[in-house]
Amino acid sequence: MIINKHTKFLIVGLGLLGGSYARALTEKGYYVEAITDKQSSVDFALEHNIVNRAVSFVDFEMLQNADVIIFALYPHVFVEWIKTYGKHIKKGTLITDVTGVKKCIVYDIQNSLPEGVEFVSAHPMAGREVYGVENSNEKIFFGANYVVVPTEKNTEENIDACKRIGEILGFGRIAELSPEEHDDMIGFVSQLTHCIAVSLMTCYENERLEKYTGDSFRDLTRIANINEVMWSELFLLNKESLLNQMELFRHEFDKLEAYLKNDDREGMMEMMRLSTERRKRFDR
Amino acid sequence: MIINKHTKFLIVGLGLLGGSYARALTEKGYYVEAITDKQSSVDFALEHNIVNRAVSFVDFEMLQNADVIIFALYPHVFVEWIKTYGKHIKKGTLITDVTGVKKCIVYDIQNSLPEGVEFVSAHPMAGREVYGVENSNEKIFFGANYVVVPTEKNTEENIDACKRIGEILGFGRIAELSPEEHDDMIGFVSQLTHCIAVSLMTCYENERLEKYTGDSFRDLTRIANINEVMWSELFLLNKESLLNQMELFRHEFDKLEAYLKNDDREGMMEMMRLSTERRKRFDR
Repeated sequence: MIINKHTKFLIVGLGLLGGSYARALTEKGYYVEAITDKQSSVDFALEHNIVNRAVSFVDFEMLQNADVIIFALYPHVFVEWIKTYGKHIKKGTLITDVTGVKKCIVYDIQNSLPEGVEFVSAHPMAGREVYGVENSNEKIFFGANYVVVPTEKNTEENIDACKRIGEILGFGRIAELSPEEHDDMIGFVSQLTHCIAVSLMTCYENERLEKYTGDSFRDLTRIANINEVMWSELFLLNKESLLNQMELFRHEFDKLEAYLKNDDREGMMEMMRLSTERRKRFDR
Repeated sequence: MIINKHTKFLIVGLGLLGGSYARALTEKGYYVEAITDKQSSVDFALEHNIVNRAVSFVDFEMLQNADVIIFALYPHVFVEWIKTYGKHIKKGTLITDVTGVKKCIVYDIQNSLPEGVEFVSAHPMAGREVYGVENSNEKIFFGANYVVVPTEKNTEENIDACKRIGEILGFGRIAELSPEEHDDMIGFVSQLTHCIAVSLMTCYENERLEKYTGDSFRDLTRIANINEVMWSELFLLNKESLLNQMELFRHEFDKLEAYLKNDDREGMMEMMRLSTERRKRFDR
C-alpha cells in the first residue's frame, strides 16, 4: 500500500491516542472514520470535527470502506476484536496499532487475520497522564518516538507505509525494532520507570511532605498518576522482561545502599560519576 | 536582629547558591560582601556586579562589618570554618546557611560559636544540576521552598529575621522544621530520589536506549546528573534517615514485584490506585 491523499483511515478505539491520531489525520486532510464503544466519544468526536464519521458499534461497511485500520485498544480487547471481526476486513487492507506491548499480541494477530490483510505493528511513544478522546491532542506526537515493530511476515512496502503514517502524524523520530527488542526496551524505559514512581509514591504516608517537595520528587512521581487498568495489563503482558529489568535496578539500588552502610564514599562516587556520564548522553 | 535596608550581608562561599543569594540581595539594594576560595569566582562576581566587595581569603574586617553572614559551603567545610574563624565574628551577628543536612551540623555549630552570635539554620530547597557562581541565578528561588530549621537555642526575633531573608530572596513558601524533621523529610524527597535516579541510570548499559526514551525516563533521571563530591557527603551525613527511607522504598518495590510474579493483578491495581490518589495531592 502507498499512502496518498485518497487513503481512507478507520480508527478503532477513540481514546487519548485514537483521538489524537484522528485529529492529526483529519487536520492533514485525510478521510477518517471511527468505531468506538462509548456513544459519548462518538458525540465528542463528531462535535469537534475530529472525524468524518463515527459509530458506537462494529459497522461492517466501515471495515469494507477503509484502506488503513488503526487499532487503539487495550491489548486483550484488540486480540479479541480481531478474532471476532477480523474475517470482515477486506483483502488489501493495512492494519496497524498503538499497543504498548508487542511479543504477546503481534504474532497472534498476524496468525488470526484473513489472507491478504497485513498487520504492521507500531508503538507511538506518546502517552500522557490523561485519558479519553476529550484530552486528545495531535501535538503529543511532535518530537516523540514512533517505533515500527515488523515481523518476517511483513512486506517492505507496508513497513514503509506504516512509517509514512508516523511521519504524517508528526513524530520526531521513526525507528524499527523486533517485537522482542521492543518489549525489552519498553520494559526498561517505560514500565520499570512506572514501577519505581508508583513504589516511591506509596512507600511513605506523610501528608505534610507535599509542602516540602521540590522538583526532584515531582519529576520522579509525575507518572505515579497512573491508569491502573491499562498499566496492570501491560505489566502482566510483558512480565518476563519487566521482572528482568526490575532485578537489574534492584541490584544497583542494593549496591548503593551497601556502599552507604559501609561508609564507602569512593564506591558511591564511582556510581555517581557513571550515572552523570551516561545521563549527559540523554540530554536533547 | 531586624532586617532593614541598611543590613549588611556577608556571603561565605560563592557557588551556585551563594552566588544566587548574592544576586538576589544585590538586586534588592542590599550591601553584599563575599569571601570565597577561588579567585576566579571573586573575579566573576565583581565583573558581574553580583557583590559590592569580594575576596579569596578570610578577611577579618569583613567579619566585623557584617550584620548577617550566610554560609554556602559544603557541610564539613562549614563546621571546620566556624571552629577555626568563628571567634572573629562580632557579637550580635546573625548567622545562617544553606546546608542540605541539619542534625549533624546545627547543634555542633551552635555550640562552637562565641557568646552573642546566633546561628539560625535554613535550607533553601532550590538546587540545580549545575554548579558554580557562573551558573547562579536568583530566579531559582521563585516558587521554591525555604525551610528554617531552628533549635531551642534560637530566639523568636532571629528566627523571624531568618524567615525575612527567605522572603527577600523571593521564595514561594517559608516553612519551619526541627533538625530531625528536616533530615527525615530531605532523606525522602531529595536523597532517596537521587539514589533511585542514579541506580536507574547505572543499571542498564545500552547506548541505543537514548533513541527510545520518552519523557518518563528523562524525568526520572534528570537528577542522575549529580555532583558526586557533594551528594556522597550529604548521603553519609544523613546515613540513618536515608537508609530508613531506602528500606521503605524497597519494601514497596518488592511488593509490586511479588504481585507481578504471582499474576496478582488486583494487588498491582490497588497500589496504582493509592499512588494515583496520593500523587494528585502533589499537583500544584
